[in-house]
Amino acid sequence: MISYEPIRGMKDYYGKELEKIKFIENTFREIVTKAGYSEIYTPVVEEFELFSLKGGEELRNTMYVFKDKAGREVALRPEFTPSVVRAYLNGMQHLPKPLRLFYIGTVYRYDEPQYGRYREFRQAGIELIGSSNILSDIEVLNLLIEVYSSLGLINEIEIKINNIAIYRKIFNNMNIDESKQEHILHLIDKGRKDEAIKELRGSEFTSLIQYLLEQNKMDENSYEEVIKEVSKYEYLGLKEEIERIRIINNIISELKVKTKVDLGFVRGLAYYTGVIFEVTHPKVPFSIAGGGRYDGLIELYGGNDTPAIGFAVGIERTSLVLNSVISQKSPKKGVLIILSEDRSNNNYDEGIISYGLKTLEKLRRLGLVTTLNLKEQSLSKLIPSYLEEGYSFLVIIGRKEFEERKVTIKNLENKTQVTVPESNIEDYVKQII
Amino acid sequence: MISYEPIRGMKDYYGKELEKIKFIENTFREIVTKAGYSEIYTPVVEEFELFSLKGGEELRNTMYVFKDKAGREVALRPEFTPSVVRAYLNGMQHLPKPLRLFYIGTVYRYDEPQYGRYREFRQAGIELIGSSNILSDIEVLNLLIEVYSSLGLINEIEIKINNIAIYRKIFNNMNIDESKQEHILHLIDKGRKDEAIKELRGSEFTSLIQYLLEQNKMDENSYEEVIKEVSKYEYLGLKEEIERIRIINNIISELKVKTKVDLGFVRGLAYYTGVIFEVTHPKVPFSIAGGGRYDGLIELYGGNDTPAIGFAVGIERTSLVLNSVISQKSPKKGVLIILSEDRSNNNYDEGIISYGLKTLEKLRRLGLVTTLNLKEQSLSKLIPSYLEEGYSFLVIIGRKEFEERKVTIKNLENKTQVTVPESNIEDYVKQII
Repeated sequence: MISYEPIRGMKDYYGKELEKIKFIENTFREIVTKAGYSEIYTPVVEEFELFSLKGGEELRNTMYVFKDKAGREVALRPEFTPSVVRAYLNGMQHLPKPLRLFYIGTVYRYDEPQYGRYREFRQAGIELIGSSNILSDIEVLNLLIEVYSSLGLINEIEIKINNIAIYRKIFNNMNIDESKQEHILHLIDKGRKDEAIKELRGSEFTSLIQYLLEQNKMDENSYEEVIKEVSKYEYLGLKEEIERIRIINNIISELKVKTKVDLGFVRGLAYYTGVIFEVTHPKVPFSIAGGGRYDGLIELYGGNDTPAIGFAVGIERTSLVLNSVISQKSPKKGVLIILSEDRSNNNYDEGIISYGLKTLEKLRRLGLVTTLNLKEQSLSKLIPSYLEEGYSFLVIIGRKEFEERKVTIKNLENKTQVTVPESNIEDYVKQII
Repeated sequence: MISYEPIRGMKDYYGKELEKIKFIENTFREIVTKAGYSEIYTPVVEEFELFSLKGGEELRNTMYVFKDKAGREVALRPEFTPSVVRAYLNGMQHLPKPLRLFYIGTVYRYDEPQYGRYREFRQAGIELIGSSNILSDIEVLNLLIEVYSSLGLINEIEIKINNIAIYRKIFNNMNIDESKQEHILHLIDKGRKDEAIKELRGSEFTSLIQYLLEQNKMDENSYEEVIKEVSKYEYLGLKEEIERIRIINNIISELKVKTKVDLGFVRGLAYYTGVIFEVTHPKVPFSIAGGGRYDGLIELYGGNDTPAIGFAVGIERTSLVLNSVISQKSPKKGVLIILSEDRSNNNYDEGIISYGLKTLEKLRRLGLVTTLNLKEQSLSKLIPSYLEEGYSFLVIIGRKEFEERKVTIKNLENKTQVTVPESNIEDYVKQII
């Protein structure tokens, strides 16, 4: 027996639920396209190593990994950034920079399913490759804000921001290798700050790091204080990183969105090197979008040293907090009914069918959604059933209409009916739309 | 070292190549939406059994199958129909019938990659569930024709048609079980008709089947002949199946498409029970779309006896024969340049940036695609570089513009430049669009 349910942690989408998903996808696509981003499709299946190399502990443990028939260790993508970077390295290095790309698609995590956590889910995101300019941080955050603004959520969300470059600079000065940096940041991300500090014990920077991690709600005063504190270690170059996050925050808070600069905030992915950010919403206990700067990833994969920044919107998670779908006015829906001579199956006149198909095409060209009637019922039963299903009009073709080259149009909303010659259909339909 | 290539048999799509793919996807979506079809998303990963049960020998051997961490035998979908039927059984049985669904997405086959054969590829298709009426066969074929007509390929393609019910009726009378029917049809599909006949040797219908398989180009005369032939076995009910295919072909050939009724034509999927069809194009040696009636599948999966028919367009294969993308007029592309005081990185005035972001939003709302400049070059170098990249205008904001609440708009096409107050941007931009 086949199970009717999708496999654990995965879902089918249709009807109202899909409408929300598509509203988010289409809104995102429209905004980033207007900002000069181009779409990219990458495969769902990639080499495992592409994601494991720098994805971080958590992601590595929750990947869908398997061996294909040739023994390749492959994975279903758990996120898009590594795939987009690979595709960039494979065929787009010659394009003018900065390069602006966007994607919309499914990702996979073998995780314990729960509210807001699926094994197949959707992300819509951008990657801006080739600029380390502070304006690129602002561009990306600005687009994230525009997306949530167009979704009608701008007054409800909060954007949490940090600049992980502060810690990278300290760690690099301490000669802590990449994998240990990854581990320490992972501990901080998981709220295990004490353990992270323990790993750093004995260094001259331990108390500085501890101090910075505690600055979880920066305001104008705290910037001055923090800058004074880091000035004791001027050679680390931390001041410009604090300044950078201050400028960014000042500018984006003018865009009518709540922001919070939290120097103790870290994200799960291990490749971030600069500004990082997350979108949260009071209705749900998890972030609904996130991103950051990953200046080292392209070089790590073997490319030139190339700065980059991006974000991904969690589509399902965002749909959980969506208040309403701002839908375009949906066009009137109608039905074309071809009457068979004696109502028995398959007993239609070929000429009437051909005439019906031509009429159908004409109606659709005029912008009407028009379904062909396939229900084998009498007209008196069809009318109430289509009315109940939300149709606005019927177009009826029987022998008489066919022979006189006419159609009968029945308006279900105002209960009127007219029979018009083929050549007048257009004029009449324009009144309905 | 990470490999930059996608894994064998899979591809990245962007730029011109993606434009073709999206043109096919968007054309398809528009046509089926206007015909009353609703979109459905189903997971890429499903239980292996869902596809193996009735997919046919070829498909079974080329599936991406693996065990997940809980030991489930899962597969990456090799086609959509079983998933859509599963989703229908899971949550849509109460909806009014016939139910019209469409999908667009990736499918997976572990096959030897070659021209037109990928391991990840895309299908766009429909399923019409709940009608066995001849009009439903015609509706589905008519939509397939409308898709290729809108793609500009209608004069080039040919639609091959058959009615597999002819053979099902004979086999059922012979008490040949489902799996043997599948095997015989598979042999016929692979062009091994002699072997198929051998399997049927000794039956009273062997020569009838052999005769029917040879009728590979039906015309008005051959219908009469074939009907005379099958009338010898009236109890098999073959005459109405021949009549059905004749009516369908007569009607769709009026739609200005080349058709060919071939009674020896069989398709690879094992669940077909009635009308089947395939689209071919002289430029390529494989079918580019196909479909058929599968009246038994829903019951086989445990549902009520429910007739259904559908088709899938091979998106990559269709893109191989596409002559040109009929694209909408693309909007003018512009760049907004925020001038930094001393051109050095990060040295921007916060007020100028905020003013710039507001201008950017205004331009995009007016329908212009407007990119933020991130290139750290002087204006005299930016102008030729953006001109070369195909941009039509620059919007420049320096200290002077900011303080006077103006912007400078440089038209790269006619080399004119104006400085306009913030409040006049809209009027000016309307002239550009």
